[in-house]
Formats: sequence, structure tokens, C-alpha cells
Amino acid sequence: MRITVLAGGIGGARFLRGLKAAIGEADEITVIGNTGDDIHLFGLKVCPDLDTVMYTLGSGINEDQGWGRAEETWSVKNELAAYGVGPAWFGLGDKDFATHIVRTQMLGAGYPLSAVTEALCDRWQPGVRLLPMSDDRIETHVVIEDPELDGKRRAVHFQEYWVKLHAAVPAQAILPVGAETAKPAPGVLEAIAEADVILFPPSNPVVSIGTILAVPGIREAIVAADAPVVGLSPIIGGAPVRGMADKVLEAVGVETTAAAVARHYGPGLVDGWLVHTSDAGSIAEVEAAGITCRAVPLLMTDVETTAAMARQALELAEQVRG
Amino acid sequence: MRITVLAGGIGGARFLRGLKAAIGEADEITVIGNTGDDIHLFGLKVCPDLDTVMYTLGSGINEDQGWGRAEETWSVKNELAAYGVGPAWFGLGDKDFATHIVRTQMLGAGYPLSAVTEALCDRWQPGVRLLPMSDDRIETHVVIEDPELDGKRRAVHFQEYWVKLHAAVPAQAILPVGAETAKPAPGVLEAIAEADVILFPPSNPVVSIGTILAVPGIREAIVAADAPVVGLSPIIGGAPVRGMADKVLEAVGVETTAAAVARHYGPGLVDGWLVHTSDAGSIAEVEAAGITCRAVPLLMTDVETTAAMARQALELAEQVRG
Repeated sequence: MRITVLAGGIGGARFLRGLKAAIGEADEITVIGNTGDDIHLFGLKVCPDLDTVMYTLGSGINEDQGWGRAEETWSVKNELAAYGVGPAWFGLGDKDFATHIVRTQMLGAGYPLSAVTEALCDRWQPGVRLLPMSDDRIETHVVIEDPELDGKRRAVHFQEYWVKLHAAVPAQAILPVGAETAKPAPGVLEAIAEADVILFPPSNPVVSIGTILAVPGIREAIVAADAPVVGLSPIIGGAPVRGMADKVLEAVGVETTAAAVARHYGPGLVDGWLVHTSDAGSIAEVEAAGITCRAVPLLMTDVETTAAMARQALELAEQVRG
Repeated sequence: MRITVLAGGIGGARFLRGLKAAIGEADEITVIGNTGDDIHLFGLKVCPDLDTVMYTLGSGINEDQGWGRAEETWSVKNELAAYGVGPAWFGLGDKDFATHIVRTQMLGAGYPLSAVTEALCDRWQPGVRLLPMSDDRIETHVVIEDPELDGKRRAVHFQEYWVKLHAAVPAQAILPVGAETAKPAPGVLEAIAEADVILFPPSNPVVSIGTILAVPGIREAIVAADAPVVGLSPIIGGAPVRGMADKVLEAVGVETTAAAVARHYGPGLVDGWLVHTSDAGSIAEVEAAGITCRAVPLLMTDVETTAAMARQALELAEQVRG
């Protein structure tokens, strides 16, 4: 079975670890990773979501924080601060720096991000085929009314909004800058067209899955694909399981509920939808929108629990295959 | 008193520390640093000699090895190796990486190396004005007969010759690539013209001092300067005090003796020359070449001993001022 998964960072990576545990040896996973939160820092190209997937599946992740490397050291960051060179709010450890140095060097030598990602994965052996959604530069910007500038509207990089400002300022709009002229990376459309199942993990529906869908051709390919498309709600009981998805859902006018996110994706895109058991009350609302819905445990507390979630998603895919 | 010093790496840096201890508060030191051993590694601009001077005078140096940072960590280097990205033979620690990241970013933003060096020194406060010899790219290459290629002649970067090959292969020629079209960095010619004393520390006469002199205009400015020029022999008893100066002296046809190095610089350039006490027998040979020579202790065992050397150099400068 060929499973194609659209993934953001921590939530997507943890789901993928469960999915790997749930599938058989003959099954293959292709991950289309979000690159909208990529950022240039210190002259280096940083791809937080791709790296979180790669480190998590390659057993290099810092389990406690969910991003960055295990047993990390922080000499470079401390020294940069001693030089007065920022930003200080973005956590790049020494081991992580090496990844960005290798990536930046390869990009500078002319390799596209997809080839660079493949080269990095040669080391990490994530057990999935990890594709960036696009080789083109796309950066999610967030329009805010900056309290430090008397409420003047300005667009900040998503990382500045998320990591520096902790999404504490309301997001007025989410702009995937560059997406409109971007092309899907090599293999992306094929992985969608040839998939037996397409899964949306409980990643952020706006700045992770939403940004992937903003690359022209990807949404259309998913709509056109023969494979059933099943999503898992990142919202439980009216709040994001982790992260601050509510902040960006508000910006796109979507309620922070499991049902509203399903309706936001829409029945043309998503065939099946899993909500958490406590949200069983919203099944009717989701199904009224034409999406088959089941309530199952959706807390990724450990790999086995997550594998069970993945199995539920694959079962629902079989049901909606019809 | 305005003292201008041409300096390479470890030897130059240690001499400068002694010189700082020897001078008065009103005295000013300008260092013209060798950049011929600069190298691009991992997409970063590394300036080993400038950094050795900066770290040594700024109390950040690894005292035991003479280069690199104290209390260094090595996560980035180890990770690069895990990615199979080399070279592995060049020792860049994590703290050191930060310096190169800042430098590379500033160069990329359009600042010349002299401005970058000044910015880095804002942090280190070396107590001297540190100028690169040139803002233009100059790289010392060494022609060898490569034993791994059946003795085929090829030019390697100086760092490859020095650090990777440990100068174990005879150097056929030393080429300061780019020097012929380079210009002295802003302030260099002025620091020479306005100096009260010009000193050549016991740095490598070929690949450190020699490369600085290879920048068109610098040698001429020193010859034309009113200030007395005094050098300290890096050779004691027919061998370099540290490093492998004998290997590169051979390549330029100069004997590894204190007197031969003085004659190599020549009386038009150097007015006074200090040899180690054990080399007192060579005074006559040096003076026969028209260079005033004294024998004094030249082992930089600690700062006080080195300060005494510096005082001897300044005294000799007064004598030859005539």
C-alpha cells in the first residue's frame, strides 16, 4: 500500500512515527512536508518542519520539546549572542546548525531542496520518502497589528509570530508568500496520484496542511486522486492538542472545533475525518457536510497509541473507498 | 608611540600579547594581519590568523593549542562528519563556527573584511587595531608533488598543506594567489607611513610576513617609511621555534637560520634584527648584510618573557633610528 501523508512539524512527525509502527513491511510512506515555515537565519536555510520529521523518524529528535536534536549543545547560539547577532528567540543548537550548514552549502552548489532533503535523509534513514512540498521558496507571513508600533499593521515571518511573539497578538491574515508562483517538488504530484491512501495528520490546518495545499496543483491533485483522503482532527474539545492552531484558525475565519476544521477542508478534499472520542457529538455536523466521520482516541501519548490512531485512519480510508 | 606590527597566527599573536604588556598607555598598536591562509569551509569564510590574534588578545584563545577557542565544544564538526561532509582535517569548534557565521553573513551583506574584522573586535576588545592586510581575496597555495597521484604536481591550499599534509611533502613553490591584483585594506598604508616603529614578530617569514609583503604597495610603503623596522627571528638554532617554517623556507630557497631569514627580508626592508642568544654567532653575518643585529632571549615562554623581547625590539628600533 502506498500511503501519502501531508505533514507539518511536531504533530505530523509524531503521527508518522505511529503510522510507521502500524503498517506492514510492503507498505510505503511518502511524506509531503511543509516548507512554509522555512526561514533564513544567520545566512543559513532552516527547514523546521522537514527537520522535525527527519529527526523524529531518524531517532535524533529531542523528545521532550518535540523539535531539535537530542543531547544538543548551544555553543554557537551563545557565541552569536555574545557578538550581538540575533535573532536570539530562535533555538538553533549546535547539532542542528550542522544540518543547516550542509543544506545551505548544497543549495548554494545548485541542488534543489528536494535533492538536499534526500541527501540529509541518507544519513537519518527516516523510513519514509520525505519530499518538500516545493523546491521554490515559500514563506508564510502573518499580518499583525504590532503593539510595539502603536498597532501598525505589518507582516512578520511565521517563525517570528509563532516563536518570538508566541502567537499572542491576533493574526489578521496568513500569507503563504511565494506560493502562488511555486511548483510542487518533483515526485509530489506523482505521490498523490499514485497513492492508495492520502492522510492529513493532526497537523496545523492553516500553516502546515493549509500551506501545502496552497502550492498550485497540490490541492487539485488531491481532489482528483483516486485514493481516499482521511484527516485526523488537531482540535480536541475546542482547543488545539498542542501548539496554537486556534490563533491561525481565527485568522482564516474558522472556529476552533474538530467539525469546523473538517468543513474548512471541505468534502471535495477530505473523504473521512477522525475526531477524538470526546468530540463524538460533532460527528453529525461533519457528516452533514458530506464527510464520513468516526470518533476514536486521538491523543498521541506514545507510539502505540499513535499507531492505533493511524490504524483507525487507514480503516476509515477503506470504508470511504466505497 | 605608534607601533605597526605585521602578524601571522600563533607566533604573531603571542608576540603581540607581550608587546601590549611592554608598552605604555599612550602607545598604540596597529596589527596588519595575514589573510593568505584564509579558507572557505562549509560555505563559511574562515580567517585563521586574524582570529588567532583576536582570540589571543581578547582572552578567548585555547592556550594549549594556540589557536581556536578555550573551552570549545565540537558538536557541529562531529555532525558534519556524520553527514559525510568534510573536510574533517580542519578543526572548527562550535564557538569558532559562530565567528565564521557572523563574518560570512556580514561579508554577504556587503561589508569588506576590514569592517567585519572591526565588528568582531568590538566584542573581543583586543586592545590593538587589527586590520586585514587586504579586503581582497588572497589564498596562499603550495605546489607539491602529490605522492597520492604518483608525484603529479598540483597546487593545494596552504591549509591543506599545513594542516592536512603536516607539511610532510616538500613544497615546490609558494603562491599567494590573488595577491598581485589585491589592494591593501583601508588604513594599512597609513598605519605603515605614520608608524613610529614597525615590527616583524617571529611569524613565518614566507607564508605569514611574506604574504603580507606580497600585497602590492605594502613592501614599498615599509621601505619608504620613516620608522625603523625591526624583526625578531622565528628561527632558533637552525629550526623554527614552532610550526614548520623550514618547509616553506626551503621552497623559496632560504636556509633555515636566523641570519638567512634576515638576509631574505633584506636591509632595504629591515633595519634591525633580533636573534636568540644561542644564535649570537650569526650577528656578524646579519650585520655584514647591513642590518643591525642583537642577540637576546627569544623564547615566548610566558607573557613577561615575551614582553622583554618586545622591549628589546623597541630598544633596537631606537638604536637604528640613528
